Amino acid sequence: MTSQIAKITVLPGDYIGPEIMKAGLAVLKAVSEDEFNYQIDEQPFGGAGIDQKGDPLPQATLDSAKNSDAVLLAAIGGPKWDDAPKRPEKGLLQIRQELNLFANIRPTAISQAMQKYSPIKQVEPVDFVIVRELTSGIYFGKPREIDDHHAIDTMRYTTDEIRRVARVAFEMAMKRNKHVTMVDKANVLATSNLWRRVVSDVAAEYPEVRYDNSYVDAAAMKIISAPEQFDVILTENMFGDILSDESAEITGSLGTIPSMSRGTDGPALYEPIHGSAPDIAGKGIANPLSMINSVAMMLTHTFDRPDLADQINQSVDDVIESGNVTPDLGGTASTTEVTDAIINKIRERR
Amino acid sequence: MTSQIAKITVLPGDYIGPEIMKAGLAVLKAVSEDEFNYQIDEQPFGGAGIDQKGDPLPQATLDSAKNSDAVLLAAIGGPKWDDAPKRPEKGLLQIRQELNLFANIRPTAISQAMQKYSPIKQVEPVDFVIVRELTSGIYFGKPREIDDHHAIDTMRYTTDEIRRVARVAFEMAMKRNKHVTMVDKANVLATSNLWRRVVSDVAAEYPEVRYDNSYVDAAAMKIISAPEQFDVILTENMFGDILSDESAEITGSLGTIPSMSRGTDGPALYEPIHGSAPDIAGKGIANPLSMINSVAMMLTHTFDRPDLADQINQSVDDVIESGNVTPDLGGTASTTEVTDAIINKIRERR
Ligand SMILES: CC(C)[C@H](C(=O)O)[C@@H](O)C(=O)O
Ligand SMILES: CC(C)[C@H](C(=O)O)[C@@H](O)C(=O)O
Repeated sequence: MTSQIAKITVLPGDYIGPEIMKAGLAVLKAVSEDEFNYQIDEQPFGGAGIDQKGDPLPQATLDSAKNSDAVLLAAIGGPKWDDAPKRPEKGLLQIRQELNLFANIRPTAISQAMQKYSPIKQVEPVDFVIVRELTSGIYFGKPREIDDHHAIDTMRYTTDEIRRVARVAFEMAMKRNKHVTMVDKANVLATSNLWRRVVSDVAAEYPEVRYDNSYVDAAAMKIISAPEQFDVILTENMFGDILSDESAEITGSLGTIPSMSRGTDGPALYEPIHGSAPDIAGKGIANPLSMINSVAMMLTHTFDRPDLADQINQSVDDVIESGNVTPDLGGTASTTEVTDAIINKIRERR
Repeated sequence: MTSQIAKITVLPGDYIGPEIMKAGLAVLKAVSEDEFNYQIDEQPFGGAGIDQKGDPLPQATLDSAKNSDAVLLAAIGGPKWDDAPKRPEKGLLQIRQELNLFANIRPTAISQAMQKYSPIKQVEPVDFVIVRELTSGIYFGKPREIDDHHAIDTMRYTTDEIRRVARVAFEMAMKRNKHVTMVDKANVLATSNLWRRVVSDVAAEYPEVRYDNSYVDAAAMKIISAPEQFDVILTENMFGDILSDESAEITGSLGTIPSMSRGTDGPALYEPIHGSAPDIAGKGIANPLSMINSVAMMLTHTFDRPDLADQINQSVDDVIESGNVTPDLGGTASTTEVTDAIINKIRERR
């Protein structure tokens, strides 16, 4: 990958989206010098897609993403498009399906240094990853109906859909602490029972990995009371949506968390886990760390350059420790100040 | 209700169930002396139902419940019945449907005194109630299928099902801080869109009540970061299952929380929110407070005796403050010691 020119589709999106994307790209540029060759193709997406092309996922944007090696997305949506016939979020659901991004991967970590930001009293360091199924389940199942008397959504899964995302989780566990917890509601749902069957078959392929199950309600409690006991959490789309946001919250530092959504081949998509924060847009105080960390995640996972990712990660840690952080982390720095500080650290390391 | 003899169906259930039920009934007896006339009908339910009658909800148990003024349930389920053809939890789902208990009500409170038990650093007192729809949605929708290739669950709601539980939430808000937050996933689900339509109509009937919406993923975050901002949370069955357990966890005192499940008429069911705790069963150390608080909730809501409930509540508070608590709350007292202490407090107050 490093010999050719890497193609990256860039989707700045809405509100603070372009502000943090600018930061992410500046750091990518700094860390890449003489090291990593890439070209970016910037495209409108979400609200920006609606405004510029009448569609949250314009055809040209989708084409660019499909032809890329990786997609960087900042954040989309906001009150401006509340009454749009197709809302920005529809673009997100659509690009996930079009690129077949069936596995969403979200790290949750609370290091010693970050513990002061956590709203949780607990003391043990936390470090787990949620692998959320992203292109099926109740998000996409048919029938989906609404009329004056009733409405229906359908949670549907096939064995193939479960198996491929389960493999992602077990592969990930092999590189981590070899523990997968599958979260479901098998005491109620038929789909959860299918998940149990399929995932226990996959688990048998990974005898080194400890495999256990948790009901979703119990998992929602353990994420608060004993988050240190998780390594990899595997779950279906809707449960993953809820639990991954809950997990992010226990870190107290939403503004720093990146995510990856991937398929089997084709480009993966990297994005901060937070939204477009209309309330602080334009003030220059958005935390750029989640975007910068998304860039690092991309360098590791798509471009196999963990060395460059490490330079970013260490520089980010240094800057957090120096207290040079945005207001959401209790600091007074601007987006640009944080970004420049990180770039300086990267240069110092050279 | 106080002139006749109140009929209470008692379901001790499994593992610690009978231990805490004994405590609850002892407190009920102590507080009732010369004040409240009742008779109890004890019936097997859950695992005990399977063992004694081959069914988690035996016909005689259901008949007793239907003929009662209120049902007291302790806790059911456990590993013993993992492979039963009909598991204990099925009995729970079935009794909810048979008694038409469409609204599940769960208080979440962190008072100044209880804050030390909370795993959350936050400082403001928390006091909200979750009103969870309990007899529809994905728990009961058809089709529900599983075969070798796929599985399906159906989330279905009618306008009537939504309206009746919404009214419970708004009535409750009128007696509290006049604020209802409806939690849904309206950016994805058709059923959530029906909920928004119906609930905003109901909200219009209560102009004094502030009404707002939250997506379920955002709500899972706010329950940790800003729980003090909620008064009444209204939500559908599955979201309510997850969020109410998450909410219980932020109090750090699961072993104290009661719940009520009710319909329009007919008996309501009162029970602790925790499970049957097989790991501590038989040791005499189960926390009886959730069961005792369930008795108080029953006295208030079914029998209109808030005066008796107050005697219980104040005695419970006194005993907690004195540190005479079970190991789950950091104490060394046994179930019986805590129960006796509460009964003594009740007698002292007379
Ligand atoms: C915007 C919404 C449709 C989306 C989801 O629920 O998947 C978001 O919450 C997320 O987690 O990426
Ligand atoms: C046991 C289970 C079926 C039940 C539910 O999900 O409703 C329980 O978790 C509850 O909340 O009462």
